[in-house]
Amino acid sequence: MCELLGMSANVPTDICFSLTGFLERGGGCGPHRDGWGIAFYEEGGYREFRDPHPSVHSPIARLIRDYPIKSHVVISHIRQANVGQVRLANTHPFSREMWGRQWCYAHNGQLQGWQDLPLSYYQPIGETDSEHAFCHLLGELRRRFASPPESPRELWDVLHGLCERMRGLGVFNLLLSDGQHLYTYCATKLVHITRRAPFGKAHLSDAELSVDFVEHTTEQDVVSVLATEPLTDNESWHRMVPGELLVWRDGEILARLGAFEG
Amino acid sequence: MCELLGMSANVPTDICFSLTGFLERGGGCGPHRDGWGIAFYEEGGYREFRDPHPSVHSPIARLIRDYPIKSHVVISHIRQANVGQVRLANTHPFSREMWGRQWCYAHNGQLQGWQDLPLSYYQPIGETDSEHAFCHLLGELRRRFASPPESPRELWDVLHGLCERMRGLGVFNLLLSDGQHLYTYCATKLVHITRRAPFGKAHLSDAELSVDFVEHTTEQDVVSVLATEPLTDNESWHRMVPGELLVWRDGEILARLGAFEG
Repeated sequence: MCELLGMSANVPTDICFSLTGFLERGGGCGPHRDGWGIAFYEEGGYREFRDPHPSVHSPIARLIRDYPIKSHVVISHIRQANVGQVRLANTHPFSREMWGRQWCYAHNGQLQGWQDLPLSYYQPIGETDSEHAFCHLLGELRRRFASPPESPRELWDVLHGLCERMRGLGVFNLLLSDGQHLYTYCATKLVHITRRAPFGKAHLSDAELSVDFVEHTTEQDVVSVLATEPLTDNESWHRMVPGELLVWRDGEILARLGAFEG
Repeated sequence: MCELLGMSANVPTDICFSLTGFLERGGGCGPHRDGWGIAFYEEGGYREFRDPHPSVHSPIARLIRDYPIKSHVVISHIRQANVGQVRLANTHPFSREMWGRQWCYAHNGQLQGWQDLPLSYYQPIGETDSEHAFCHLLGELRRRFASPPESPRELWDVLHGLCERMRGLGVFNLLLSDGQHLYTYCATKLVHITRRAPFGKAHLSDAELSVDFVEHTTEQDVVSVLATEPLTDNESWHRMVPGELLVWRDGEILARLGAFEG
């Protein structure tokens, strides 16, 4: 299984603390040695870093951990290969431009019959079920909406329907963003925490590192972090419910779409 | 004016030597302080690094210079902003997926009336004339060919026609790649050099650095480098002719399409 890490914040925030614990799982204390990647939506644009090597040995991971890139939305992924070789083209996150925005996607899980998911505007570059599912999902949104719908709720409903259909094919835990919203969908496992004033201290589960957020924040900051498993051992994380789609913006939950009735 | 750097090679090759001279021009000895970027096509896929800060001060530039990424095709760009703010979304290279391949593009020059170039499949994310022209160009190719044409010459002819039309709008020096081919089009200024056995020594024009390629190559290696201006001061570089499109593969020129008759 792969692992996911996401962030949504109302101020440009660096993710160095969470990332330090997360990347430890990439071949350090975890079995996820088949590459890792991270995407940042900064005020000025989008950038991503990907490496097909275990994150604990990656010079790029070291750079990212030490060079605080401040952003509103982050999506990161460490990989344990199931479908597709260990190579750069199969390394998450994946991204495509739609409606003049860069959409970024990372997936945890495995799908059955993914080869039959129809494609339209977007074609996979690598060989993974994950990228195929991403191209399908984005293509379906674009076929449905030639431009962003006036009511975002319409978009969220269609997205939720697509995620639910994907959950029918296997395990589909998802992080997706257009740079403004962070969409998180839970098929089996995804946890989140929102940090705001009064800020406290946190201690990583996977590394000997603590941080006192009071020293790094202002009263107005709202920073939410999502992960496959809790990253700290002294805070309480919320578990998402299978079938649930959360829409985040500026660190807050904008909408919560529940599982379809079965 | 911005500057371009490209490479096509028949073996995975690092570009550290050329890059050292090139990045010196980014706010060091040159006026190009408005960001820089580089894209690598490695055997396993595509990755790009972009930074809106001057390359001489960029920790990412330092990483790339010191961490030899070996690839067949490289496209790099340092920017002096003309159209569009200094921000990440306006930093070259730009990339989009077409036909299941990642296409990468960097442009040197300025265009008139670029806002009127029609768009179809691809929309710009930033505000530059360069990205708009890229979206136009790729969209036109995709409108013409739903999938890669059987005869690549057909594609090259259409691409050359599009470049020639763009040259009618101003200065359009171009590096473009699908990961296999490197397309280089000259409107005003682009030079190239092909290094092969017997290899010799080279000395950078912009930094006190020499390299003896004999120590880093085998007899079979063919490595071609393209740049806005020669990067070394003891080798002879070839100047491209305005209106000329060169198609490179594995370090060799596959095709040479001359300027349209006026």
